[in-house]
Amino acid sequence: MSQALVNRILAELNRIRLVDPHSHINPHSAASKTLADILGYHYYTELAHSAGLPREQIEEPGIDPKEKVARLVPWLRDIENTVQYGWLIDLCRAFFYFEADTITKSNWEGLYDRAIETLSQPDWERQVLERSGLEAVFLTNDFDDPLTGFDTQRYIPCLRTDDLVFQMTNPETRRRLAATTNIEFDNPLECEQAIGALFERFTRAGARACAISLPPDFEPVPVTATVAGKLFATIRSGSELTLEERRQLSQFVFWKLAEACSQFRLPFDLMIGVNRRVYEAGVYQGQDLFDGRCSLFQYRRLFNAFPRVMFPISVLASGMNQELVSYSWIFPNVATNGHWWYSNIPAYIEIDCRSRLQAVPQTKQIGYYSDMYKLEFALPKFGMYRQVLARVLAEDFVVARAWSEERAVAFGRMVLRDNVERIFPARR
Amino acid sequence: MSQALVNRILAELNRIRLVDPHSHINPHSAASKTLADILGYHYYTELAHSAGLPREQIEEPGIDPKEKVARLVPWLRDIENTVQYGWLIDLCRAFFYFEADTITKSNWEGLYDRAIETLSQPDWERQVLERSGLEAVFLTNDFDDPLTGFDTQRYIPCLRTDDLVFQMTNPETRRRLAATTNIEFDNPLECEQAIGALFERFTRAGARACAISLPPDFEPVPVTATVAGKLFATIRSGSELTLEERRQLSQFVFWKLAEACSQFRLPFDLMIGVNRRVYEAGVYQGQDLFDGRCSLFQYRRLFNAFPRVMFPISVLASGMNQELVSYSWIFPNVATNGHWWYSNIPAYIEIDCRSRLQAVPQTKQIGYYSDMYKLEFALPKFGMYRQVLARVLAEDFVVARAWSEERAVAFGRMVLRDNVERIFPARR
Amino acid sequence: MSQALVNRILAELNRIRLVDPHSHINPHSAASKTLADILGYHYYTELAHSAGLPREQIEEPGIDPKEKVARLVPWLRDIENTVQYGWLIDLCRAFFYFEADTITKSNWEGLYDRAIETLSQPDWERQVLERSGLEAVFLTNDFDDPLTGFDTQRYIPCLRTDDLVFQMTNPETRRRLAATTNIEFDNPLECEQAIGALFERFTRAGARACAISLPPDFEPVPVTATVAGKLFATIRSGSELTLEERRQLSQFVFWKLAEACSQFRLPFDLMIGVNRRVYEAGVYQGQDLFDGRCSLFQYRRLFNAFPRVMFPISVLASGMNQELVSYSWIFPNVATNGHWWYSNIPAYIEIDCRSRLQAVPQTKQIGYYSDMYKLEFALPKFGMYRQVLARVLAEDFVVARAWSEERAVAFGRMVLRDNVERIFPARR
Repeated sequence: MSQALVNRILAELNRIRLVDPHSHINPHSAASKTLADILGYHYYTELAHSAGLPREQIEEPGIDPKEKVARLVPWLRDIENTVQYGWLIDLCRAFFYFEADTITKSNWEGLYDRAIETLSQPDWERQVLERSGLEAVFLTNDFDDPLTGFDTQRYIPCLRTDDLVFQMTNPETRRRLAATTNIEFDNPLECEQAIGALFERFTRAGARACAISLPPDFEPVPVTATVAGKLFATIRSGSELTLEERRQLSQFVFWKLAEACSQFRLPFDLMIGVNRRVYEAGVYQGQDLFDGRCSLFQYRRLFNAFPRVMFPISVLASGMNQELVSYSWIFPNVATNGHWWYSNIPAYIEIDCRSRLQAVPQTKQIGYYSDMYKLEFALPKFGMYRQVLARVLAEDFVVARAWSEERAVAFGRMVLRDNVERIFPARR
Repeated sequence: MSQALVNRILAELNRIRLVDPHSHINPHSAASKTLADILGYHYYTELAHSAGLPREQIEEPGIDPKEKVARLVPWLRDIENTVQYGWLIDLCRAFFYFEADTITKSNWEGLYDRAIETLSQPDWERQVLERSGLEAVFLTNDFDDPLTGFDTQRYIPCLRTDDLVFQMTNPETRRRLAATTNIEFDNPLECEQAIGALFERFTRAGARACAISLPPDFEPVPVTATVAGKLFATIRSGSELTLEERRQLSQFVFWKLAEACSQFRLPFDLMIGVNRRVYEAGVYQGQDLFDGRCSLFQYRRLFNAFPRVMFPISVLASGMNQELVSYSWIFPNVATNGHWWYSNIPAYIEIDCRSRLQAVPQTKQIGYYSDMYKLEFALPKFGMYRQVLARVLAEDFVVARAWSEERAVAFGRMVLRDNVERIFPARR
Repeated sequence: MSQALVNRILAELNRIRLVDPHSHINPHSAASKTLADILGYHYYTELAHSAGLPREQIEEPGIDPKEKVARLVPWLRDIENTVQYGWLIDLCRAFFYFEADTITKSNWEGLYDRAIETLSQPDWERQVLERSGLEAVFLTNDFDDPLTGFDTQRYIPCLRTDDLVFQMTNPETRRRLAATTNIEFDNPLECEQAIGALFERFTRAGARACAISLPPDFEPVPVTATVAGKLFATIRSGSELTLEERRQLSQFVFWKLAEACSQFRLPFDLMIGVNRRVYEAGVYQGQDLFDGRCSLFQYRRLFNAFPRVMFPISVLASGMNQELVSYSWIFPNVATNGHWWYSNIPAYIEIDCRSRLQAVPQTKQIGYYSDMYKLEFALPKFGMYRQVLARVLAEDFVVARAWSEERAVAFGRMVLRDNVERIFPARR
């Protein structure tokens, strides 16, 4: 297969304007201010820490941004091989006039200064969106986020529900939920009403997804009103829930969220497989890992119970990708979604992408999302994905199945862009 | 690696005459009658349903074949990317003079009519076998199939035993077994005699395999006569078995089947890992999925207990393929068998095929079976496999290990054809 | 991607002098004496047995070496496809002037004789090390190995601890430990002292690692002194431990080993995932297999508890490799180590190698070890790895990320050689 073919397909894919269906962008501060915002992305801090940089040096309270970069730079050498380092170089070249292959003790200060020049331009946020081909970006909003003060056409709200499902025993979570909904709840019915109020507010504000990340051992099942009532009674009494009761409470809230998704016609974006705080001494956001012993079989009751809810699914373990392909090929309400976190490297994207393109209806695949915290990362991350996608389209479709290049590119456009609109439709 | 090399190897592989070691062909109606038989293959109905076509429209009782195709065609657009759609186009081109890239609302009726012309030729069954290079096809016979009225040299009987192992609590299953064997059984010994009678009849009729599909949590172990006796006593009493007792009954019958395989020298073809009816609202044959949490370690007692029984094994999850490779490399009585169902797409065939060719004795690998319900599918399905096989032989043997092309082709012939005869030998 | 590029990188990798960080070499008899030593490698005996050669013929007591080879040769035909057979041909060509493609009934005797000529040269051991580019080789020493009579600069001691962890209930193990340490232990504290004495002796002798292989269901946790005390009391009383107590005893000893590694600053080399004696009728060393249902999540407490101990990790199942990549990317004290046993074939090395090179800090990856029993195998086994490594460096770094070839080769040197010194540092 010729590289020229891949390059022609890639050039066409590069022209497609994007809607990024999952990010952690703060719409009030979407772009980076300095190189410290960029190097502060957990990939760099956690990899530098893994290579030997003590957490205390990275996370010293009140540390000056330039000093933070100065401390990280010497450790970048040990992670130059990583694809995450590749993103860094790609974006420094694209945005900061950087021309070297590596960031070193001798060139980082110049880079730092040029980055500030770029990033402090008054219209930088508009520029970076434009240069990255981004028309809109999905957010990750806390359930009590006021959702005000930003353009919800550009930054699309998304109701993130981890706290509701896994922290409902925390009085602070209940206080926040009561405060944002004006519903004092201390029984299952009121809890359901509070959830309804959240969905009401989020959908009015243009939210296009409800989202959650889930541990490998989570299994959604309905919880009876009687059982739920006892759980809330125990909470009211001030007693601690047992582990089993906490599990049931999570299942209860999760099921109520799925019911609300059905009622409010919101897709329920499931990110399956993360164990939180596995490495407790790790840097901020660099403590989570996974356990490959997890199956979508655990979700069968959910998929059967909510035929009208679309479940776009991300799996953390590449080993679960074949299940995702198969469940998406069978269940009308299951779709594949992006390449998440530890699976977001070319070696795993390639095999996962190939199997999805070969066996899931083309209308049910969302190719990629950035998962970024700052806008500058869309360019290198989508760039990495498009490179893999172009190769797979060339090999598995143009060469192996004799498709025309136009047809391959049209398929690429569907997974890169069209399906975001199809699977997370804008609300009228 | 040059495409010309791959093509040369592929051309040689295409000349090899085949014996298909696993299918669901009905020998009394082996070929399709209309395009509805072809589009009725569960891959098309389940993928169209997954893309949005309601089951009720596909499975309306008494629906006319042409109307059924008319309802499916509009949904084919959404699954054009799938390799299963690729099989459809390949066979329409090979058999029905179809020349377009896709089947559309505007060209399907002409195709439907041309297909009828082809399929209604009086010697079509012979033609399709000939043009697909098929000399013989293994069947999947119910245990009470009379096995009469067809040529058992061309259509080779195979005793399928799922009902015996997993439906023995069903009175209808016991009635069928008693009726076909003339043995009224209500204790373990009589059950064993009935099984013996089945094997006697099947092997006399030329059966070359006993086969079964198994759920991921099944673990074969011997069950004592005392325990089995209590199970049958409970059945006699008309009481329901508990879940645990049902499990033991399945294990008992399974173990007796393995003993019969040993006694009658039949290979025991195990298809491991399917969960039935996971999506209960799915179309016919489009409801089953899997759980990747399954291991061949569960089968260690079986492999050790029956050294004289050959176990050709299919795994549903590609993630179990490395175990299959390793168990086949260690156990003399374990062989690799084809690429099953959700693993039967090029992305997974490639990695699974590569590892098998690299590490399992070449005499213990069956490359492929069609699993088809209608004869027309052998051509595109074996065609897909040969394309992958040719590439792996070229890359991993001719290029990486400097084998001659002749030697690579001879190895290909062994896994494609010779080993079917070796592992499922014809009975004298 | 051009094969010429791969070949240029490979030529440079071939010039790198090696330290092999894991082998089973006997330093008193490191090289083979006859072809029987080479064909006696378990890969050949187990594959020939898998293909049909009865164990009794291979393992007949007192069998003459030439007769043993004569019995194996006819079965080699069935395993010519395997990569392990490829190693055999590669080493016969490199060392024994062999020029055919296959070893047959008609050419094996000449080969046998030429092999003896080569192997009986007085300086063969030095020659084979030199021609294989080996500067030093790590050993696998029983805990009561005297560690005398060999050059510990060339053959580096490594404390293997499987017996201590899993056979402590065996009186013979306790006797050996008491004998080698001169510590009569019958309580946890004395056991800990005995372990300390072992580490003292091994580190004085230049040991650079403590190593162990572990079954898939092992989970390291600390065991309280009270619980451990009861276990030793039960042993003292002559009673048998229950399965659960045996598990706790293993966990106790394992945790004490980790503490000793921390105190003596030895890396703890974990080889995770082997089930011993799964096929009990198999040939010597050809009885072990694995269960893919295993996770590094089971090791979280260990990694957190011993931040100063480096854990180079091998996984038996390629399906666990993504966990290994991810845990190494997050935990500073986890490193990737080689491609072990059932994962040591090009199909799995390639995907495992690609993901590691793309996502683990480059300083924390040990590319390969030979695991060999005789020195002649370093050449073909490292040769196989370098071939895969060269291709991955070419595709994923030179082509996909526009690295210079020099930079790619430097990265290759780091994983092939430099990191062995970095992760298993020589003791001053």
